[in-house]
Amino acid sequence: MASVARSIRPWTTCLRQQASRRPHTSIRSFTRSATWQLHSKEMDEDMLSSLKVNQSRLMEDIHYTCQWGTGQRWGDKPTETGMSRLALSDADKEARDWFVETTKALGCHITVDSMGNIFAVRPGLRNDKPPTFIGSHLDTQPSGGRYDGILGVTAGVEVLRTLADNWVETEYPVGVVNWTNEEGARFPMSMVSSGVWAGSIPLETAHNLREVGPNSTATMASELARIGYLGGVPASHSHIPMGAHFELHIEQGPLLEMSNKKIGVVTGVQAYKWLTVTVKGRDTHTGTTDLKSRADALLAASKMILHSHRLASAHSALASTGILNLKPGSTNTVPGEVTFSLDIRAKSDDTVAKMKELVLSDFPAIAAGENINGIQDDCTPGLPCTVDIVEDFDSPATNFHPDCISVVAQAAHSVLGRDSHNLMMEMTSGAGHDSVYASKRCPTSMIFVPCREGVSHNPAEFCKEEDCALGAQVLLQSVVRFDRLRDMDRRSWRQEPYHL
Amino acid sequence: MASVARSIRPWTTCLRQQASRRPHTSIRSFTRSATWQLHSKEMDEDMLSSLKVNQSRLMEDIHYTCQWGTGQRWGDKPTETGMSRLALSDADKEARDWFVETTKALGCHITVDSMGNIFAVRPGLRNDKPPTFIGSHLDTQPSGGRYDGILGVTAGVEVLRTLADNWVETEYPVGVVNWTNEEGARFPMSMVSSGVWAGSIPLETAHNLREVGPNSTATMASELARIGYLGGVPASHSHIPMGAHFELHIEQGPLLEMSNKKIGVVTGVQAYKWLTVTVKGRDTHTGTTDLKSRADALLAASKMILHSHRLASAHSALASTGILNLKPGSTNTVPGEVTFSLDIRAKSDDTVAKMKELVLSDFPAIAAGENINGIQDDCTPGLPCTVDIVEDFDSPATNFHPDCISVVAQAAHSVLGRDSHNLMMEMTSGAGHDSVYASKRCPTSMIFVPCREGVSHNPAEFCKEEDCALGAQVLLQSVVRFDRLRDMDRRSWRQEPYHL
Repeated sequence: MASVARSIRPWTTCLRQQASRRPHTSIRSFTRSATWQLHSKEMDEDMLSSLKVNQSRLMEDIHYTCQWGTGQRWGDKPTETGMSRLALSDADKEARDWFVETTKALGCHITVDSMGNIFAVRPGLRNDKPPTFIGSHLDTQPSGGRYDGILGVTAGVEVLRTLADNWVETEYPVGVVNWTNEEGARFPMSMVSSGVWAGSIPLETAHNLREVGPNSTATMASELARIGYLGGVPASHSHIPMGAHFELHIEQGPLLEMSNKKIGVVTGVQAYKWLTVTVKGRDTHTGTTDLKSRADALLAASKMILHSHRLASAHSALASTGILNLKPGSTNTVPGEVTFSLDIRAKSDDTVAKMKELVLSDFPAIAAGENINGIQDDCTPGLPCTVDIVEDFDSPATNFHPDCISVVAQAAHSVLGRDSHNLMMEMTSGAGHDSVYASKRCPTSMIFVPCREGVSHNPAEFCKEEDCALGAQVLLQSVVRFDRLRDMDRRSWRQEPYHL
Repeated sequence: MASVARSIRPWTTCLRQQASRRPHTSIRSFTRSATWQLHSKEMDEDMLSSLKVNQSRLMEDIHYTCQWGTGQRWGDKPTETGMSRLALSDADKEARDWFVETTKALGCHITVDSMGNIFAVRPGLRNDKPPTFIGSHLDTQPSGGRYDGILGVTAGVEVLRTLADNWVETEYPVGVVNWTNEEGARFPMSMVSSGVWAGSIPLETAHNLREVGPNSTATMASELARIGYLGGVPASHSHIPMGAHFELHIEQGPLLEMSNKKIGVVTGVQAYKWLTVTVKGRDTHTGTTDLKSRADALLAASKMILHSHRLASAHSALASTGILNLKPGSTNTVPGEVTFSLDIRAKSDDTVAKMKELVLSDFPAIAAGENINGIQDDCTPGLPCTVDIVEDFDSPATNFHPDCISVVAQAAHSVLGRDSHNLMMEMTSGAGHDSVYASKRCPTSMIFVPCREGVSHNPAEFCKEEDCALGAQVLLQSVVRFDRLRDMDRRSWRQEPYHL
């Protein structure tokens, strides 16, 4: 692993060093000259498989950019800290500046749209056509890690570097996009900026999103302007069209690791809904109010959180509460009001809809004192609370494009070699990603790599160096393969789909 | 009820108006002259019962002082708002200034100690002896009401006014004390300043208490200095001794109202402990982490809160969680850490100790996945969480002084008249009060009056005007009766205790 000292050298030095390096592919496949460029269409399978990303350079980019927004330490090594790079913070601005400067130096044209999405495009032969994009995000959770989103963007940059190193000229332009506020951690709507781009979220809604936390008046629009990333180009697929969108991401779950696989070919994203539940009871003194005279909003909320977990267990779904606020917040006052988030997920839209239906019927019943599944057993019946449930966000199940899925599978087979069938699997993403919105407007797929114990949204989130590089390698090949096939007759191409 | 417009006139005007009023007691009992003073010892039962507080003047003081720190509105009338007067805030300073100016104008000597406790003492005949004190507090909960604490202090002022109006000279000095930060809402230790006075809490601990809420650096000492109430006299019973401590308070529970009684003769305070529980799991992504791979600290905490309620129900105790904070606080991250308060109360020390013992054994078991009382029924077993439990505060059961209890009972019988037996009851206080600490250093008792539906620590906390006045009347008589009996042979006096 590159030491931090090395990784913190300026990228310009890094590029200068590259200039003196030999290309990473074999001499047999590639001739490096100032006058000759390799066209993607001319490449055969051997050439494709010998076109290699640089693992240590990729890791340097990851750790170098993690100097901005460094989070909680979890290990002794210099790079063993998490990340806390909230969208549109000063740290996010630094990472964005790096992205712009690095891709510009690689010959990319930069576009910043009205959501601060940054599109870096490397020209191809047919620049009148939409680029094939690689996309992910540089913002993190408040206590996030070094790979979620960051791997996707830096791997995109590494793809650009590898294409440049090897003088590859693509048929269509190739772009890398850094989407704004994918996490929805600072401004509470995840994937909001790809959502605006796709036309699914109104620009005004996104611009007016207020920073979470008491008393903040900062909005996405005010923070975009403050850090200088409120671009003039409309955030819209019609102004910035895409030929395709590929995204490399850590799995954020344990399935790849548990099954000793290296690459997940992502065929879609599970459905989910975000609800906000407000429980109202009555503030009363903890010492003087007997249990039966209480309308304890937190006790009711605790029952609901437990019940939502029981419902999820029964329906093979997920139910999670990540935010809970109560009022007034004093040790000797029974809380009169509790608000909490409820994140419901399942593979099918139907299951999520069923879960929501049960929540809508059961939560008010629990608040009223009804004994659902024994939740009130051994409790003292108190005064009723009221419940208000609002759906904040709905993301139906997403199915990625068969062409992109097929290209990713071909790339994975090529990269993983002889044992590829044992090292890859098709999977559904548990988390939402910008690819969900991208897939509404262009062919899309994703590539997953394993992360340690499936842990993510945690400082100790970790992906092995070789897995980061394998993922980037599959990403590179996917983009080149897609570029080669884009103007083919899709029907004939798909007559021979690549089965896993 | 006095209109707000009237109640907001300056207190100096108020006093000037009083000067032209006739005394509120009958001519038969009291002669008003500049040269003659009525000695408390000369008063007979008729005279005692005709010495009357002024209900409308008391209500004016309550509502006038509630201009500082006005809270949430709950009704249409001008006085139908709650209070949010946190200790040592600017609003608290205004209320303190009023208290000092008003009692000074009534001829009191003012002492401010190193905890900002304000002692206003009206001289008696024997000023070498400790005063008989009336005490309570002017600070409130963040979403508190107009009566908790405020009634006790303003009723104390009304007692002083009534003594002045009627030219009553007491044998011993009579004082009113405003204790600092009784609520423990802003600086998280309730009754902290009477605790320092009693020698139960070190001054340094109290001074270093930090304001609750993220990122605040304000301490009790810095805020006392800021608002000009860091007095030079040590906060200590040895420097400021008390002959007795009487406190009028709303019940803050439903018992008086439910039984149609008017006065509670408080014989003691229930035992309680405050615990802080920290549950540690692991931050993970809500969408990608299946239920069995989670160490969900909030789900575990929800089970513990529900379990604590079940334990309380089984042991005739109270268990309440008023504060809960979680990290990292994002809709799509399973919380890895939750901290919550647990307030346990019961009549006896033994029950509180038993409850704590069960919490200490059951909470870690629940976090580890053990199925206690069916709490894990229908749940998906996940990864274990860890639990850390700290006892922040312990208040053993308090028994008030029989002399003071007896005096309060006599006063209540006198004030309530013929039907007194049906209108009063002995009771144990559910809440802690400054009287708990006062009782460690001087004879103490309390007087309770009903509040609507037992609601307290709530903006809509309400006590009828006539009940406020009845309580103040009992307080006045208790003080005068105690003054008359202080130097009697206690034993002989107590040979005829007043039974309810």
